[in-house]
Amino acid sequence: MSARTDDRAAVFHRAQEYIGSRVSDSLTSIDPALILRTLELLTRAPSIFVYGAGRSGIIGRAFAMRLVQAGLRAYVIGESVTPIVQRGDAVIILSRSGESYSSMQTANIVRREGSELVVITTRPTSKLAHAASVLISIDLPEDGERSRLAPLGTLFESASLRLTDALIAALLVARGENEESMRARHAIMV
Amino acid sequence: MSARTDDRAAVFHRAQEYIGSRVSDSLTSIDPALILRTLELLTRAPSIFVYGAGRSGIIGRAFAMRLVQAGLRAYVIGESVTPIVQRGDAVIILSRSGESYSSMQTANIVRREGSELVVITTRPTSKLAHAASVLISIDLPEDGERSRLAPLGTLFESASLRLTDALIAALLVARGENEESMRARHAIMV
Amino acid sequence: MSARTDDRAAVFHRAQEYIGSRVSDSLTSIDPALILRTLELLTRAPSIFVYGAGRSGIIGRAFAMRLVQAGLRAYVIGESVTPIVQRGDAVIILSRSGESYSSMQTANIVRREGSELVVITTRPTSKLAHAASVLISIDLPEDGERSRLAPLGTLFESASLRLTDALIAALLVARGENEESMRARHAIMV
Amino acid sequence: MSARTDDRAAVFHRAQEYIGSRVSDSLTSIDPALILRTLELLTRAPSIFVYGAGRSGIIGRAFAMRLVQAGLRAYVIGESVTPIVQRGDAVIILSRSGESYSSMQTANIVRREGSELVVITTRPTSKLAHAASVLISIDLPEDGERSRLAPLGTLFESASLRLTDALIAALLVARGENEESMRARHAIMV
Repeated sequence: MSARTDDRAAVFHRAQEYIGSRVSDSLTSIDPALILRTLELLTRAPSIFVYGAGRSGIIGRAFAMRLVQAGLRAYVIGESVTPIVQRGDAVIILSRSGESYSSMQTANIVRREGSELVVITTRPTSKLAHAASVLISIDLPEDGERSRLAPLGTLFESASLRLTDALIAALLVARGENEESMRARHAIMV
Repeated sequence: MSARTDDRAAVFHRAQEYIGSRVSDSLTSIDPALILRTLELLTRAPSIFVYGAGRSGIIGRAFAMRLVQAGLRAYVIGESVTPIVQRGDAVIILSRSGESYSSMQTANIVRREGSELVVITTRPTSKLAHAASVLISIDLPEDGERSRLAPLGTLFESASLRLTDALIAALLVARGENEESMRARHAIMV
Repeated sequence: MSARTDDRAAVFHRAQEYIGSRVSDSLTSIDPALILRTLELLTRAPSIFVYGAGRSGIIGRAFAMRLVQAGLRAYVIGESVTPIVQRGDAVIILSRSGESYSSMQTANIVRREGSELVVITTRPTSKLAHAASVLISIDLPEDGERSRLAPLGTLFESASLRLTDALIAALLVARGENEESMRARHAIMV
Repeated sequence: MSARTDDRAAVFHRAQEYIGSRVSDSLTSIDPALILRTLELLTRAPSIFVYGAGRSGIIGRAFAMRLVQAGLRAYVIGESVTPIVQRGDAVIILSRSGESYSSMQTANIVRREGSELVVITTRPTSKLAHAASVLISIDLPEDGERSRLAPLGTLFESASLRLTDALIAALLVARGENEESMRARHAIMV
């Protein structure tokens, strides 16, 4: 095995560990009170809307799918069948920078309608963060390896998937649901 | 704070840790030789196709987006602009059970065309696994907490995201790319 | 202008007229009683589901979007937030051939659940057609120009768009809706 | 049959005819020279990008799918695998009003990159129209029945589908393609 070959396999395993541990660090410090407030908004909202641009939106879609399987009504903003947001609904925006135009425009509409806004971001001082009813800040300080092992939004997206999957586990307890009841709501996949 | 409230926050943090450590365990044991073979297929294929049903397909889409940013040509099977698979192309199928009809049908077409097939699955003995040119088996043994903390395919999907993100890090080395060159390929997001 | 150039512009205008007139012919003969039965199913269903493979599915998505704007709950089968079909729901399948595996599988699930099935197809004798509660057959006899001016499913897809748009106009009357009330339900598009 | 019931069936057939004839009127007057210029841009572009917001984007997706089957490389702006637009590429924007923020932003990026822009719109005096390399204006004057029989963008979307399908017919001539060669490029649909 050449040195070069070796490098690549080593980078794979180093990146895998790096992503796992950086995400663990960022999630461990999340205040349980914020999780409880988020769960309250999610369980009492008639409809839940998820938004994210690019890859954050892809993670948002994975979350929305689980919300539906958990028995809630959920939509992804930007998809064809998504209705309008109404007073009392909950909207979750995933945005690493807290600065994308489309996220800010979504937040403005949400607040104007009197809906609740949960923002998940790495920038607690961004304009988007200021618009939030519940702000979940994911702390991912820069270091020398990040750009090489987890380029662009990789850490934020990975943290968002694990965070929203853990929210689903807590939501099952809150709603008296379990894997069997979720499986029964698994949609037709053809 | 009531006992009930307490439970929910505890479940969140327990689930977050559980997912992280189970995924770490499953990825640590992956044979570096399989990663190298996958990288070889990806870098020499004229086009790369990704397929997964349901939430696995969502993770596949996140991977395809990064492949494009890394300078490769990638498509998601099932999307409107996806061309036909041709000899020499590489196809990656994400399937926890290795048994979904649509995954098997995709695999059959791929093999008939003479393309290379990478299968990522938890079932190395499934029919889909047997059709693979490269089989990446993700070992996620059942335990007493799994259904409560990570229902349905949560662990597989989470492992798939981390695995494919780590493949991207290795791919950057293999292709002499970095975060800046990826950012320059970041598509219009309106 | 060269002869070749001339040809292309002439083919454009010939195709445009051909598609328009073939679609008109196919829709004029549709029995009003079938339209009324379809409207009844759509207006009384708690949820409406639309399915089509490939380009038929794209037209189905355009229809589902209008159904939501008309105040109904509608989903596209295969999208991430689509819940399961339940008794009393209405399902509309668009399938030119009436023979695609995924359409048949969808129809089987729909009938097993006791939901109502509207099939729009060019093949009234197909297995899919036989599974329908309401069968809307689009008659598009083959002629010598079809493959050149409207290749593959072009005529069926064009007829399906016009048919479903006309259903929306009739639905507005049935539900006492109008353009203004629809505009007020126009979702966030960011 | 009650008067009310009768109304609804009559509205269906009236809407179906109305949409067909209004679309025919709007397309008949399109200058063949614009079609030829569009075909030239499409056939010589390394990649073609299609964009539209909402339902216009759905029609754009149907067009992109046919472009791929006709042997061209085509992408939908906003989808996960869409690469960046480069000099020499062709971009087609479908926008009824010519005023949506996302369409204007897309046009600005396209012009900055030195790519060619085809705009299909009902507003030849809009800012978007002014940014076009080729402007295809669809003339749909308002009348007393439009809002009732073809609410919101129905006529524009219907005209866009027929126009782009007719472009495909002309493109087949220009490229020496036919239905059989298109069918052979029909992607895996599982």
